[in-house]
Amino acid sequence: MDRLIIFDTTLRDGEQSPGASMTREEKLRIAKQLERLRVDVIEAGFAASSNGDFEAVRAIANTIKESTVCSLARANDRDISRAAEALAASDNKRIHTFIATSPLHMEKKLRMTPDQVFEQAKLAVRFARQFTDNVEFSPEDGYRSEPDFLCRVLEAVIAEGATTINIPDTVGYAIPELYGLFLKNLRERIPNADKAIWSVHCHNDLGMAVANSLAGVKIGGARQVECTVNGLGERAGNCSLEEVVMAVKTRRDFFALDVGVDTTQIVPASKLVSGITGFPVQPNKAVVGANAFAHASGIHQDGVLKARDTYEIMRAEDVGWFANRIVLGKLSGRNAFKQRVNELNIPIESETELNAAFAKFKELADRKADIFDEDIQSLFSDEAVTPHNEHFKLLSLAQHSETGERPHARVVFAVGPQEVTSEADGNGPVDASLKAIEAQVNSGSELLLYSVNAITTGTESQGEVTVRLSRAGRIVNGVGADPDIVAASAKAYLNALNKLYTTGERLNPQTSLTP
Amino acid sequence: MDRLIIFDTTLRDGEQSPGASMTREEKLRIAKQLERLRVDVIEAGFAASSNGDFEAVRAIANTIKESTVCSLARANDRDISRAAEALAASDNKRIHTFIATSPLHMEKKLRMTPDQVFEQAKLAVRFARQFTDNVEFSPEDGYRSEPDFLCRVLEAVIAEGATTINIPDTVGYAIPELYGLFLKNLRERIPNADKAIWSVHCHNDLGMAVANSLAGVKIGGARQVECTVNGLGERAGNCSLEEVVMAVKTRRDFFALDVGVDTTQIVPASKLVSGITGFPVQPNKAVVGANAFAHASGIHQDGVLKARDTYEIMRAEDVGWFANRIVLGKLSGRNAFKQRVNELNIPIESETELNAAFAKFKELADRKADIFDEDIQSLFSDEAVTPHNEHFKLLSLAQHSETGERPHARVVFAVGPQEVTSEADGNGPVDASLKAIEAQVNSGSELLLYSVNAITTGTESQGEVTVRLSRAGRIVNGVGADPDIVAASAKAYLNALNKLYTTGERLNPQTSLTP
Repeated sequence: MDRLIIFDTTLRDGEQSPGASMTREEKLRIAKQLERLRVDVIEAGFAASSNGDFEAVRAIANTIKESTVCSLARANDRDISRAAEALAASDNKRIHTFIATSPLHMEKKLRMTPDQVFEQAKLAVRFARQFTDNVEFSPEDGYRSEPDFLCRVLEAVIAEGATTINIPDTVGYAIPELYGLFLKNLRERIPNADKAIWSVHCHNDLGMAVANSLAGVKIGGARQVECTVNGLGERAGNCSLEEVVMAVKTRRDFFALDVGVDTTQIVPASKLVSGITGFPVQPNKAVVGANAFAHASGIHQDGVLKARDTYEIMRAEDVGWFANRIVLGKLSGRNAFKQRVNELNIPIESETELNAAFAKFKELADRKADIFDEDIQSLFSDEAVTPHNEHFKLLSLAQHSETGERPHARVVFAVGPQEVTSEADGNGPVDASLKAIEAQVNSGSELLLYSVNAITTGTESQGEVTVRLSRAGRIVNGVGADPDIVAASAKAYLNALNKLYTTGERLNPQTSLTP
Repeated sequence: MDRLIIFDTTLRDGEQSPGASMTREEKLRIAKQLERLRVDVIEAGFAASSNGDFEAVRAIANTIKESTVCSLARANDRDISRAAEALAASDNKRIHTFIATSPLHMEKKLRMTPDQVFEQAKLAVRFARQFTDNVEFSPEDGYRSEPDFLCRVLEAVIAEGATTINIPDTVGYAIPELYGLFLKNLRERIPNADKAIWSVHCHNDLGMAVANSLAGVKIGGARQVECTVNGLGERAGNCSLEEVVMAVKTRRDFFALDVGVDTTQIVPASKLVSGITGFPVQPNKAVVGANAFAHASGIHQDGVLKARDTYEIMRAEDVGWFANRIVLGKLSGRNAFKQRVNELNIPIESETELNAAFAKFKELADRKADIFDEDIQSLFSDEAVTPHNEHFKLLSLAQHSETGERPHARVVFAVGPQEVTSEADGNGPVDASLKAIEAQVNSGSELLLYSVNAITTGTESQGEVTVRLSRAGRIVNGVGADPDIVAASAKAYLNALNKLYTTGERLNPQTSLTP
């Protein structure tokens, strides 16, 4: 049976979502989960876009063994050299170079003639082949490009040695049938089309990214799908990995394709990406939403009880929803904790990290009777900013609110080696706490988003707070977890400040440089 | 040009989502927004399922003039009579009757033979036609039914006078091409197929509900799409109204169909449904997600600045994202308030309601400098439980938390005419407040979900809290808004208790009786 290559771009196209910017450590953590998920290719980033992203790609290339690691690069020597440099240590790497080919993008964005674009595409692939035999080429906005011109460009880049040809629907404009026929037509017209693997890259602006991708496969003959966990990505996002994979598996009768993904790692991957980016997954999201399976939402419909197939076409356990959640408590020791961490497939970087998480676990167990899997996961996502760059840190917090009075908070926090105490009033206790921090830090940032999710059910659950701050065009998310929602908010705010103040260490993804 | 009928089932199939159950007042408010959105048909509920839903369907049938109002009914005389009774006052009504036709559903759920199902379908349509000329028939799980049997049933019900034939993909198993051909084949084989309008009803389990629906239209010749706002619905939800409508409008070149929907009412409808159900919309949701349009998320990409068409295929203002938000403040009078309420298309039921909202507005303006549109909207959703059934009500709250101490809360609330004071400790101030309420109420309910969203951006924003409670198989959502997140939580909890204690007044939608 033919194999469908799963190319995950959560760390590149997904990260370009406003507010989804990640640290190197966060990207590495997700990359390890993607390797565990057994995706074929991990697009780790866009090495030339910033020093931070260069380092992230390098760290992932140095760590990941089972998946191919890829970096994006514009079609120029500098970008390609940077990508090659970041990927140097990997035995299993790919360079993905792109240039826009649609009339609109060539004229308005690139200000180049078609002939110039043609030449640059050829030279870029030729140059990339000096570093690796595994080169992917994308004509950006390909689906809105002139087929004649596209055939000319693609034939030339295949002749130069491009091994994968990807046709992006950059603006999410395609319809399944038309997109499938568009690819089919290209493959039939280009004489050396069979020398490359064809790939689809669809955006979800009209809600059809998955169907378009699959039409590209079925009608168009593509054998690679580019996708992201939770459908993360700019605007309405990219083709969702979990949906496209489960569609191919569930409808194997129609697609007749093998997929290497270990589907039981899908829900853990979804939770990890959602926790790190602070992008919630809506309950009615296919496969990974809380309501996606009747039995995961706690509801047993009469019909489901009579026969599972009546309403369910997939099994919740096949995509990694756990039927039984082992609960730890105050008396659980380090071994039980470590075992559960392993069973949850949480990547541990070092014994130091495990010890730090275990200390937090004991602290939490003192305040909370039952510790659920999600609590354990949060201990690690709380560590998203690793100690060495934890400049701001909550030490203690006291707050009070009462109907008719102005809420008040006193926050004690570390600023580097210094201990700072600050008090403020606010509209509510969270507002007062954040104002108290801001009164000392004076970051001047704007709060774009504030959201809380209970990590576990029941009133005793921890709160996990996400804040999104914007300053001078830079957007960061901060996450904090605590049984006290006000303390969780202060932690999240300080976490975001830590990210704002580590300039240069991360990609600022709000660029226009993307397929 | 041919017209595509938009059949909205947010209030019926959407409401069956665990936790999305609504009161009659909430359903009526959404129905009015759907009328403003100019959907062709509003499926208002399932009249025979409960007295609460009967009353909701009746209230909607009595109020809505511009859209057809429809009730679902199983294929039996009692259900159809109840539907007809609820719809009696409407000049523009439809009865939608259904029975399962797939081998699996007939055998496992109905325990009926195909011949029995055939007879019952015929009799049901014949009976329904006594009440109205506008009768829709759905073979539940139609897409997994035997085509021969389906042809026999559908030909018979069209002969009995069914004017719309709907083919549900009840379990979300379809693929666009196959689903389109399935409909095409039925329509070609059934001799009287042209006597009915054909309809599609798709679920999103594999992420393809929109594409499947549109293939049913393009390939299969359907001229009605059944859909819900935000894609609300059981499991992964239904075909999303906003996506399917914008796909047909944006790709008019391909579909060549007219749609009557006023797209500028899409985002207000999305916010209303999300606010009432407590189901958040993820940022990367097409059309209505916060990130769906680059400029709505506050980010202006280089490419977008150079030419809008480079990355955007729709305009944010066309789907009701407001570019400029008028801000009210402390000094704004009743007229300015009323004008903005009208501009926001918030339905006002009476002067009493407007006065109550204005009083809340003044109260809020005392505590919050700038009042945004979302604040105004929340004043009304806070009113979701109308005064006459507000049994539990927050009077005042005081809470305190401090690192190293146990958080404590004192809550004073009304229980009917009685004033109750209760104190409790908890893991956090929210936990303490909810425990204090529960200590007096003893509802014994389980907290399934707790989430907070800032209604506006900035630290001064109000918090809107959703809690989902479960008791004895019944699930309700409560919503509360307040600048103080702890007070908002207490309000949300009391709101949910009000819903739990108004037994019989609402549909308990967790039944297995659905196309």
